[in-house]
Amino acid sequence: MSKPSLPKGTRDFGPADMAKRNYIFGTIKTVFEKYGFMPLETPAMESLQTLTGKYGEEGDQLIFKLLNNGDFLAKSDKEAIALGDSKKASFSLSKKALRYDLTVPFARFVVMNRSDIAMPFKRYQIQPVWRGDRPGKGRYQEFYQCDADVVGSASLLNEADLVRIFDEVLTSLKLEGVVIKLNNRKILSGLAQWIGKEDDLTNLTVSIDKFDKVGVEGVEKELTIRGFTELEIDKVKRFLSVTGSIEDKLNWISENLDSSEAKKGVEEIREIIGKVNITGLQAAALELDLTLARGLNYYTGAIFEVIVKESGMGSVCGGGRYDDLTGVFGWQGVSGVGISFGAERIMDIMNERELFPLDTAVTTQLMFVNFGAEEENYCVKLAAELRNQGIKTEVYPESTKMKKQMSYANAKNIPYVLLIGSQEMKSGELTLKNLDSGEQTKVKKESLLSLFS
Amino acid sequence: MSKPSLPKGTRDFGPADMAKRNYIFGTIKTVFEKYGFMPLETPAMESLQTLTGKYGEEGDQLIFKLLNNGDFLAKSDKEAIALGDSKKASFSLSKKALRYDLTVPFARFVVMNRSDIAMPFKRYQIQPVWRGDRPGKGRYQEFYQCDADVVGSASLLNEADLVRIFDEVLTSLKLEGVVIKLNNRKILSGLAQWIGKEDDLTNLTVSIDKFDKVGVEGVEKELTIRGFTELEIDKVKRFLSVTGSIEDKLNWISENLDSSEAKKGVEEIREIIGKVNITGLQAAALELDLTLARGLNYYTGAIFEVIVKESGMGSVCGGGRYDDLTGVFGWQGVSGVGISFGAERIMDIMNERELFPLDTAVTTQLMFVNFGAEEENYCVKLAAELRNQGIKTEVYPESTKMKKQMSYANAKNIPYVLLIGSQEMKSGELTLKNLDSGEQTKVKKESLLSLFS
Repeated sequence: MSKPSLPKGTRDFGPADMAKRNYIFGTIKTVFEKYGFMPLETPAMESLQTLTGKYGEEGDQLIFKLLNNGDFLAKSDKEAIALGDSKKASFSLSKKALRYDLTVPFARFVVMNRSDIAMPFKRYQIQPVWRGDRPGKGRYQEFYQCDADVVGSASLLNEADLVRIFDEVLTSLKLEGVVIKLNNRKILSGLAQWIGKEDDLTNLTVSIDKFDKVGVEGVEKELTIRGFTELEIDKVKRFLSVTGSIEDKLNWISENLDSSEAKKGVEEIREIIGKVNITGLQAAALELDLTLARGLNYYTGAIFEVIVKESGMGSVCGGGRYDDLTGVFGWQGVSGVGISFGAERIMDIMNERELFPLDTAVTTQLMFVNFGAEEENYCVKLAAELRNQGIKTEVYPESTKMKKQMSYANAKNIPYVLLIGSQEMKSGELTLKNLDSGEQTKVKKESLLSLFS
Repeated sequence: MSKPSLPKGTRDFGPADMAKRNYIFGTIKTVFEKYGFMPLETPAMESLQTLTGKYGEEGDQLIFKLLNNGDFLAKSDKEAIALGDSKKASFSLSKKALRYDLTVPFARFVVMNRSDIAMPFKRYQIQPVWRGDRPGKGRYQEFYQCDADVVGSASLLNEADLVRIFDEVLTSLKLEGVVIKLNNRKILSGLAQWIGKEDDLTNLTVSIDKFDKVGVEGVEKELTIRGFTELEIDKVKRFLSVTGSIEDKLNWISENLDSSEAKKGVEEIREIIGKVNITGLQAAALELDLTLARGLNYYTGAIFEVIVKESGMGSVCGGGRYDDLTGVFGWQGVSGVGISFGAERIMDIMNERELFPLDTAVTTQLMFVNFGAEEENYCVKLAAELRNQGIKTEVYPESTKMKKQMSYANAKNIPYVLLIGSQEMKSGELTLKNLDSGEQTKVKKESLLSLFS
């Protein structure tokens, strides 16, 4: 008899958690759909070769592989096993793996369905992903991602709409202190050119990406390790220290970074901000953050990151434009732009700030106390009438002690119970108890429906 | 450059499929909640030991195991690997597996949270499960289950409510020819006693379970193989041939199967039917099917199966009462009853019968054609106002050829487009085109909102 447990880094979501999760996912979904994004779901299992080589070496090692079914040893790489080479052996023991993110499965879907898809293709996807990260506070092996992407359109109106979506979702969730940070990879390319390191863009962006965590000194150290000279680092430091308004920053770039890449980046930022300003934002602030780099290599244009001030939390959303999402699957030059909501972090902040509406929880609106066989039949009939009007109701299934029935209703946060004994059945005057206030009132059977609908 | 593909037995669900799936899941969810069931979600990954030994030997082999991350060979059972014993080796290569159904994770959840759960605990769960079955028509390796269970209550009102839920869901989905078949495992126990085979109940039920597929002769063959004598088989055949009304069948049982088990079974069926009849059913028929056995061993009381006549499909729902769901995890004697909707089969029948409402599909309600930069800005502003009223709308992101924009709208099934050129901007008289009829009308900007909300 084993005492059951959950694998580390995984969670159950009981009714109270589910209500909160559905509230967040529902809000995101509604906004995505208002902007013309349509739902897509892909299977949890992908072919191993669809996933490997897409997330860097570190990522590859975090992919959960599925052991082949049946007599998997028969077809295994016996040499690799004998040598203890787990990595090599794994490819002979596993053909399928769990998706690591929603982007690669999306790219696979687009390529597989290219002849049926109307471009631009706007899809959203809200599904769990799995990563073999060491579990820790706020870090899970199974967690949800909420992505929206447009592929097949280079228009910067898409970027502006995605900024509006950030704002609209987070404003709807009543989050205060939301800052949408914007930058453009082309400016970082321009910086690389300016310092004479255009061939070393990855090392530069990876280092700058750490700025908000480690500061200037940290970036300096990082760049030194990665072989940048003092002169080069000096220029990076000048770049990182640019302050002022959006216009000030863009002017500094235009004046100093004299490459066509940098110019294009400045133009794009101006255009995106212009398009956002057509409507303005509801509550979020839009900032230009030249130090924003976003680790992922495939971004080529606008990049986004969203933070919530005073939340003690890193970014809650991210995204950007990529020029070649599907190239790895044989379809070159499909440009796209996408964003992702970090639902788990948003949930944590909302819990801390108590932002979930009280009526989020799905629960029975009205419970019938069970006084015995005859009363039960009376209640079952009445419950059916209420359900026909869409009211959530249940008849306690046994005529046990009142106390037990009431504690069930309390535990389930049911707001009202109906007490119907033989007298109430005769008179049709039912006793309604508000479990919050304890107040009891008499209600006519006929007026019950109107009370709850 | 690999041509991407999906693993066998898995599917992508694009927007049109998603709309249909959400319609079915949404209907089931709404009805579950109306009866006081609350949502639960458990992780896809469970500890391997939580799952093994719960589904019989055949089932165990269909469980998808996850290869341990990192250097998994270091801790592997080298002897088993050398001997080519895949089964034995697998336990040293894998600690986690994908859930095979929703029942075992539910039992695990109940035991792990026994001190926090208010009993009776009514939960529903709509999530995918994974099985290494050979993929085929209508048989997938990843598919959804939709379960509702009550644990901690022996009251037969639960059974009656679950029958009402079958009826209400399938009636809401407009399925005709729904028959809810009812039986009771205690009657099958009584049958085993009657023929003197009380110790061989499993072989008896497994054989009878095949009756609807193989007929009397098939059951006869099956029982012969399983070592039943001619005399015993003769009695089974008499039992299988009982016909008539529910009352006729129950009377035959009472007269012939003279055991307390059989009597209890008859009583329970009478009580459940009585409780169902308090409200009656909307469209489904309730039948007593003495040949209904349900393969799963853990059922101990009422058993259900739902078919749709003339669908050419086996059962679309099932369920039953079990007396010891959680015993395997160390908590004895927790009685429960549950049902499961076969959403994939229901979807197939609804597709064939064209039962999905036309407005199921989620799509943009109104698209703005893009005539250029200035017009776009005008449209973006107007689109924001529409979205504020909850209207799904999008501005085509580029001012490309009209034909391309219109074919996008058509492919996405967008019902209306707005044509706003410089003239319309000046006059505020916008051109609205119905893409279904091709009809164009002039609409005042101010009255647009009321048209779509």
